[in-house]
Amino acid sequence: MKTNHCKIVDCTIRDGGLVNNWDFSVDFVQKLYAGLNEAGVDYMEIGYKNSPKLLKGAEEAGPWRFLNDDFLRKVIPQKGNTKLSALVDVGRVDENDILPRSESMLDLIRVACYSKDVDKALALVQTFHDRGYETTLNIMALSNVMENELLEAFEMIKDSSVDVVYIVDSYGSLDHNDVKYLVEKFKTHLPNKRLGVHTHNNMQLAFSNTLVAAELGVELLDASVYGMGRAAGNCPTELLVAHLKGTKYNLRPVLDVLEQLMVPLREKEEWGYILPYMITGALDEHPRSAMALRASEDKDKVVDFYDKLTTPEVNFDK
Amino acid sequence: MKTNHCKIVDCTIRDGGLVNNWDFSVDFVQKLYAGLNEAGVDYMEIGYKNSPKLLKGAEEAGPWRFLNDDFLRKVIPQKGNTKLSALVDVGRVDENDILPRSESMLDLIRVACYSKDVDKALALVQTFHDRGYETTLNIMALSNVMENELLEAFEMIKDSSVDVVYIVDSYGSLDHNDVKYLVEKFKTHLPNKRLGVHTHNNMQLAFSNTLVAAELGVELLDASVYGMGRAAGNCPTELLVAHLKGTKYNLRPVLDVLEQLMVPLREKEEWGYILPYMITGALDEHPRSAMALRASEDKDKVVDFYDKLTTPEVNFDK
Repeated sequence: MKTNHCKIVDCTIRDGGLVNNWDFSVDFVQKLYAGLNEAGVDYMEIGYKNSPKLLKGAEEAGPWRFLNDDFLRKVIPQKGNTKLSALVDVGRVDENDILPRSESMLDLIRVACYSKDVDKALALVQTFHDRGYETTLNIMALSNVMENELLEAFEMIKDSSVDVVYIVDSYGSLDHNDVKYLVEKFKTHLPNKRLGVHTHNNMQLAFSNTLVAAELGVELLDASVYGMGRAAGNCPTELLVAHLKGTKYNLRPVLDVLEQLMVPLREKEEWGYILPYMITGALDEHPRSAMALRASEDKDKVVDFYDKLTTPEVNFDK
Repeated sequence: MKTNHCKIVDCTIRDGGLVNNWDFSVDFVQKLYAGLNEAGVDYMEIGYKNSPKLLKGAEEAGPWRFLNDDFLRKVIPQKGNTKLSALVDVGRVDENDILPRSESMLDLIRVACYSKDVDKALALVQTFHDRGYETTLNIMALSNVMENELLEAFEMIKDSSVDVVYIVDSYGSLDHNDVKYLVEKFKTHLPNKRLGVHTHNNMQLAFSNTLVAAELGVELLDASVYGMGRAAGNCPTELLVAHLKGTKYNLRPVLDVLEQLMVPLREKEEWGYILPYMITGALDEHPRSAMALRASEDKDKVVDFYDKLTTPEVNFDK
């Protein structure tokens, strides 16, 4: 199956920052950028571009949570072929923070939202598009969206200026049949849009689902090195680089990043296939209850956790 | 997609024994059996039934490497619905060790071989079939078998007495397209045989590949709890139990086994998605070089390891 139309968007710093509160050193990010660039990875999402004024707890987070253009110019003084991306959330970004692309290090701005906020997200997309950026719209938690709501969103999206529309498996609950169903639906209703996919690894299906999407024509593939991302993490960049057919990617620089940066980091921080995340994935729920469990003394008490989530009267998440 | 024709064969003790030299206590195996039985898992492969006379290093291994019927009767005094299975290897089993099924705790004997030994394997299958057992033939390392050899094997298999023929991804190098290709080929050439699948998780594709095979009609699905098995391990039993549609399986007892037995064991023993195993999987090779690396001081030096495997003149495995 051909996948040479694909582009990899490495989200290690942005989604991985949800694990360690964006506590990556400048040296770490520079080495990661150099490795991804050498590997031929197309985009590096280097953080969020939300506004610290619009978020609590902002002062404790690392600089990748609220990217600043002056700072970015120092971090990446020489850009290679790998483009830079930032994510913003509806309601958390101040448009005044976004320079015209000609004055910014960023090439791509991605807007994440729930399906009810697609209108607001598309207004942001238009602003960023007008300032010269490539744009994507990332509709989160698709597994919990009803058909009528999704069709309404498609109506707004199809005539918008957004370049790429993402299928986001926020809960890591989709399998290959679900991915196929969603890709076909997006292709039918958004025939003029390019597509992207962002997966989570709760059921060990992130890589497989990404491959399936790629073979169905999805173009932008989100991934992170060693799968670093919130809770169960994402599709591992190294697996896409190693396995995508007919592509220009080079595995060795990614292995170097893994050896130098990611394997040591995994000793200190936790993400990946961990049972409470498997359980929330299997139950098609947000992992927040599992993240709370892993931060508690009862972190390995998976039977109690499962009982709580599956007994309606004590379910603390619904 | 329907998967209610499927049966799970849990290989935790047999394939997991390759990790810890079969050092499982009787209590551990009894609790595992009770949990699998309560979960509705169809078969438990409780070890190998090779002969210690035909293998080196036999005296150091735990009792699950050379199953003895008297011992088994003490371990599982009361059998539930979960049937018991044992694996034998061509050239390592003494037929005289195999009692008639009516006098044995075992229900299923599986014969593993490389494709060149299918004739010898089928002779063993015939013997076990005549003694009353269910039988399977597990052709290993299919990704390294040439078409003409496989077609020759099919000719011998199709008129044999074997009940189930396995597709075995020994190196964890197959993706969903490969699995689909092999299942269709096996179905075409062996229309009267039931099929099984045994996967390895080097590329995080074990569960996904098993699901794909199941949806194509493959009936026996090998798995192990927490994926415990040689090197990158196998398809996790808990994921099949949680995700297979239209089946009778019950996740809670498997979570109990995970919490009581497997998560603590994983603290002491190593298996799973570990980079050297990912590399051998991506290169479609036996993991023995990666296992040697993980047992050495250089266990995290993945760039050197990759260079050795991909530089022909210093490749130590070919």
